[in-house]
Amino acid sequence: MSAVLEICKAAKAAAPALARASTDVKDRALEAMAAGLDAAHDPVLEANARDVEAARSAGVAAAVVDRLTLTGPRLEAVSQSLRDLIALTDPVGTVVRGFTLPNGLEVRQIRVPLGVVAMVYEGRPNVTVDAAGLALKSGNACVLRGSSSAIHSNTALARVLRDALTATGLPADAVCLVADTSRDAVKELTRARGLVDLLIPRGGAGLISAVVADAQVPVVETGVGNCHVYVDAAADLDRAVAITVNAKAQRPSVCNAAETLLVHRGVAEEFLPRAAAALRDAGVTLVGDDAAQALAGADPAADADWDTEYLDLRLAVRVVDDLDAAVAHIARHGTLHTEAIVTEDRAAARRFVTEVDAAAVMVNASTRFTDGGEFGFGAEIGISTQKLHARGPMGLQELTTTKYVVEGDGQVRG
Amino acid sequence: MSAVLEICKAAKAAAPALARASTDVKDRALEAMAAGLDAAHDPVLEANARDVEAARSAGVAAAVVDRLTLTGPRLEAVSQSLRDLIALTDPVGTVVRGFTLPNGLEVRQIRVPLGVVAMVYEGRPNVTVDAAGLALKSGNACVLRGSSSAIHSNTALARVLRDALTATGLPADAVCLVADTSRDAVKELTRARGLVDLLIPRGGAGLISAVVADAQVPVVETGVGNCHVYVDAAADLDRAVAITVNAKAQRPSVCNAAETLLVHRGVAEEFLPRAAAALRDAGVTLVGDDAAQALAGADPAADADWDTEYLDLRLAVRVVDDLDAAVAHIARHGTLHTEAIVTEDRAAARRFVTEVDAAAVMVNASTRFTDGGEFGFGAEIGISTQKLHARGPMGLQELTTTKYVVEGDGQVRG
Repeated sequence: MSAVLEICKAAKAAAPALARASTDVKDRALEAMAAGLDAAHDPVLEANARDVEAARSAGVAAAVVDRLTLTGPRLEAVSQSLRDLIALTDPVGTVVRGFTLPNGLEVRQIRVPLGVVAMVYEGRPNVTVDAAGLALKSGNACVLRGSSSAIHSNTALARVLRDALTATGLPADAVCLVADTSRDAVKELTRARGLVDLLIPRGGAGLISAVVADAQVPVVETGVGNCHVYVDAAADLDRAVAITVNAKAQRPSVCNAAETLLVHRGVAEEFLPRAAAALRDAGVTLVGDDAAQALAGADPAADADWDTEYLDLRLAVRVVDDLDAAVAHIARHGTLHTEAIVTEDRAAARRFVTEVDAAAVMVNASTRFTDGGEFGFGAEIGISTQKLHARGPMGLQELTTTKYVVEGDGQVRG
Repeated sequence: MSAVLEICKAAKAAAPALARASTDVKDRALEAMAAGLDAAHDPVLEANARDVEAARSAGVAAAVVDRLTLTGPRLEAVSQSLRDLIALTDPVGTVVRGFTLPNGLEVRQIRVPLGVVAMVYEGRPNVTVDAAGLALKSGNACVLRGSSSAIHSNTALARVLRDALTATGLPADAVCLVADTSRDAVKELTRARGLVDLLIPRGGAGLISAVVADAQVPVVETGVGNCHVYVDAAADLDRAVAITVNAKAQRPSVCNAAETLLVHRGVAEEFLPRAAAALRDAGVTLVGDDAAQALAGADPAADADWDTEYLDLRLAVRVVDDLDAAVAHIARHGTLHTEAIVTEDRAAARRFVTEVDAAAVMVNASTRFTDGGEFGFGAEIGISTQKLHARGPMGLQELTTTKYVVEGDGQVRG
């Protein structure tokens, strides 16, 4: 058995103890993890400095280095996110449905942990702690495979987390780090049937496609968002400008940021010059179709622009004939993440909400609100863009499954 | 694009009309399908006769030929199952959760159809109608790929179903049959990313493993059941005999039938001779460990027996030292389907329910109760043995996903 499968097996062996742990014990482990991190700033920051230095010497982009970098205040925020989990309701043990059958059998559908949750992610070391905390609170063991760029940071963080588990009387293998940062290690995770109950790839489209193509274990796809804002003929144009700028520019590097603006032809002449000015003030570069070039001074868009998740201060702009054309454009180019309409027309809003296929549909609100924190879930392991199991922001509940418990007094089937 | 992908594309194009169809229209289509079947006994039975004759000449086993065979009364039962769907609650449009955020955004999580549900199944032509009916009622288009042995029956049935859709004003492509019964056709279905929202393999372990190994579309695994009955030290032995016989022999060919009997050593001497006699009366052959050979006259079991889903009047019997040993045996050999304990000891029941990982855990009841019909779901597309999305009997609700609808009046993120 390979090293990766041995790790999965260790996590699987730890899973029953986690599944049985009371909320109380899990919360104590979370506090121990947070306290452990508070006490380990020095070794963690030292390890992180090695990763950051390596990234810098390799000439990695500044934004990527920034995501990789830990600081004292950032570590404090990571500890705080663990402590925030303590306040959240433990989903394990919730009775989802319960009924008594005509023959007297008492049926309860009870929420239980999945077992082993594996995660493959890129260069943010805070994800190591966030994922471990969410898995723990929901009663799951976890197998974490971060990127090679963060290996020293992740190793140091995992040591702290595992020590905290041991100190609380829980198995250290409830948090397992895969130190092998080769692609083969990811492939082995995708094939760990019977050991991994859920695999979450979190990162760029390339990582996600590769995992899905190989996966023989259940996968939830997260985070690719080619999100659109559609400004309808009946839009309040002040709102439309504010929403467009916010959706694009408030934090362009995340999946719920908008990438394409669709504008109804009837308001394009009035709206686009205003929107273009506000977007440029926010530092946004525009590409677009002929109308957008004429009305917004956009550069010409190539076909590929409509399918590109820029994750940057760049926006594609297209003028459409009507709501149908907007819906058709989204059906063709959207990634089932978040789509927004700005309109004061109730019928248009209803049609958009019904006809657009996405995890979240916004009416007169920024796409940036599709977020576990904003939705009040308290924490989020990712935003599912698939339809199975979980759709949209995934909180603690989405890291559980259910079990039917049927109690009788000797019933047999006739 | 291949013929199979063209079919998936046609189903995908039909899906929005299904998703928008009112319950009323869908129920009328179900009635039209049922009436169409009532009127088409002659052509359907003729087509079926060709399949049955081919199976007989190929020397197929009598039980398999029986599953393939349609008769007037069987067709009436199939029509009735469509009409029964009319009475069931339409899950589409249900608000699963709803809340208002501090910033005034109104969030609703609404149940919506998955889109395109594909199913790969074996030689029962009634599955063609059942699956189409469930998909229709839950607002999904479906792509059905039955076995070559039933191709004439399935073709005749699909024609009736599609005509009924057309007559109701719904797109005929809401029910698509893949006439290509090669393995390549299944492989193409597993790769139809973006076209198939859920693929359900329904059949033997070989079919399911093959589909899971290839699948790049979301899959729910169904139906492999190596189910156990554990007779505890504190069992009521009359109940234990009745439950064991029922779980094994009432309908041995189905996935929720028991395949292994585990008996606590403390009651083995009293229980096993009685159980063996009752099982033999029901026509059951026993294999077992040394103790079972001595106490129940079982033939020696091979290692493979503990992992075999006989689907036949054959039962493996093992005497275990205690509850821990029973739980460990199930953890090693179970398929996460249904596990039963017979006991009057509350603590033992609680431990078994908590520690056994399965879609359904029975206390003092037959494993045969894990069934959508028995649970009152009215219909069932399969019994999920995976933990993601759906676990246990899958009814209409499990053929849906959700969508977040967020309504505001210009909110942007700060």
